[in-house]
Amino acid sequence: MIREVGSFHVGGRPVAIAGRPVSEQVLTAGGAPHGVDPNGEIWVEQLYVQYLLPSEQRARHPLLLWHGGGLTGVTWETKPDGAPGWQQYFVRAGHPVYVSDAVERGRASWAPYQEVFAGTPFLRTKREAWELFRIGAPGSYAADPARRAALPGSKFPLAAFDRFAMQFVPRWASNDAATQRAYDGLVQQVGDCVLIVHSQSGNFGLRAALAAPDKVKGVIALEPSGAPPPGPALAALKDVPVLIVWGDFVETNPIWRHQQPASRAFADDLAARGGRVEWLDLPARGIAGNSHMIMMDTNSDAIAALVQDWMTRHGLMA
Amino acid sequence: MIREVGSFHVGGRPVAIAGRPVSEQVLTAGGAPHGVDPNGEIWVEQLYVQYLLPSEQRARHPLLLWHGGGLTGVTWETKPDGAPGWQQYFVRAGHPVYVSDAVERGRASWAPYQEVFAGTPFLRTKREAWELFRIGAPGSYAADPARRAALPGSKFPLAAFDRFAMQFVPRWASNDAATQRAYDGLVQQVGDCVLIVHSQSGNFGLRAALAAPDKVKGVIALEPSGAPPPGPALAALKDVPVLIVWGDFVETNPIWRHQQPASRAFADDLAARGGRVEWLDLPARGIAGNSHMIMMDTNSDAIAALVQDWMTRHGLMA
Repeated sequence: MIREVGSFHVGGRPVAIAGRPVSEQVLTAGGAPHGVDPNGEIWVEQLYVQYLLPSEQRARHPLLLWHGGGLTGVTWETKPDGAPGWQQYFVRAGHPVYVSDAVERGRASWAPYQEVFAGTPFLRTKREAWELFRIGAPGSYAADPARRAALPGSKFPLAAFDRFAMQFVPRWASNDAATQRAYDGLVQQVGDCVLIVHSQSGNFGLRAALAAPDKVKGVIALEPSGAPPPGPALAALKDVPVLIVWGDFVETNPIWRHQQPASRAFADDLAARGGRVEWLDLPARGIAGNSHMIMMDTNSDAIAALVQDWMTRHGLMA
Repeated sequence: MIREVGSFHVGGRPVAIAGRPVSEQVLTAGGAPHGVDPNGEIWVEQLYVQYLLPSEQRARHPLLLWHGGGLTGVTWETKPDGAPGWQQYFVRAGHPVYVSDAVERGRASWAPYQEVFAGTPFLRTKREAWELFRIGAPGSYAADPARRAALPGSKFPLAAFDRFAMQFVPRWASNDAATQRAYDGLVQQVGDCVLIVHSQSGNFGLRAALAAPDKVKGVIALEPSGAPPPGPALAALKDVPVLIVWGDFVETNPIWRHQQPASRAFADDLAARGGRVEWLDLPARGIAGNSHMIMMDTNSDAIAALVQDWMTRHGLMA
């Protein structure tokens, strides 16, 4: 299935920390206190990537999977219910698959210093995830799993919701520019590529395509929480096929009712400029019940097959 | 090379956060401010694991790779100089390889609340890594790579040192008990296994073996920063082969001069109780120049081959 695995960090910048106190810390049981000096050079705002190269490559380009807010690349790996995720699906389909952890998340590391990251981090609660990811309607969360009312016909693997919460990581609201720089650097390093982006990274992915339309050969945006504004600049993407996918129940959640129009306006404007953009509304296609976490839903393989078919139709397979 | 890849989280506990203020945050460019409520249930102290199963399994048991302090599972992946790391070496040798991120690190997530993690996190500076990992002697670090004096004959890939710094993540000094619980839970979940542990995780790995000598079939401890104290309890390990590996230049660094005797005392006591413990001092074996990051040194494959040979001699291969 896989002939090679590897990883690397990309992007970021050096920072010098000064003026902070040295503290005495015991770093291993039974060890002596050790003076930990936080002052000096550190590296910040880098991004982590792991790649899996398939035994038989059938795609023309590497496929980069970018996760959403408060999450890491684990989004794309084994699903919370233990079934294979999109990382495994697309490597089996013959894509070199690159899963990244964005700046401040997971193996990309984070800089806890007020000097570097502005503001305070916040960790998503189970209630917020349940509602924001449209597993249940606002107000339907309960600590007791038996008392949680999911949206009717929800395809999220409900019994695995508490396991899903183990994937949440803290985030800041202040690192968009650094994250965009790191993603743009990743595209430059990998070269020609196709992006699958989700939620918060929808905006990053579409902007990365605008910054490098010669290298980004296609973008699949799952429920992008934002998008570049309509305007003449979008003409740069007229030869970059874009697929935008939305799940079910968008109207039940005021945040998504508010955020969805940004990607609709983007798609309409790009289409008017001659772009090859497809708006895939799953319920309108007769596919009901998908949450915001489309890649984790019980029908995720069927959605991946639609994405795979779209890539084939747009000449992205060998 | 690899027939299956997957990942999961294990361990940890639920925590309810209360009494903290709601903040307004803009979570995507152009989005509306969104009230982020940190109060509610979260999951903390879990551990992340990714496994790679080889096409042809030749080892009897899964091989679990546990990283050291201020680092993540990336320790075992592609080396900072771009060469394959021990993850790749051992999966090629036919081991199912499980690379984890410990509690508070990488994809395991962290809990930024004083309510959960005690104390403040600290991020290792390049200077501390240069000295503590025995790449250069204390006092030899310089910001300018051309002015850094490495220890004579150092086998660390010096030109990749700044890339190595991209792997550092913040740590706390207060999570030993939670980390041990999560590692013990991982052993219970995986079942029969062999551990390769490094530095901070040396102590965790040897204690995990003491807690489950029926499941841990061997421990390879690379420069363990601590070890369980000598005493009758160690007799539980008399049928668990243990290999302890030390690199070069230990005498140049007061921290390691102080910490090495703990594993020496452990090894001597276990040997006296009939254990099969081997103390592999690389310089004494004629192998000079290894840093604390043995798995990243330019001769890392040769050291991996010694470990592989040790596993074969102790009946751990099929």
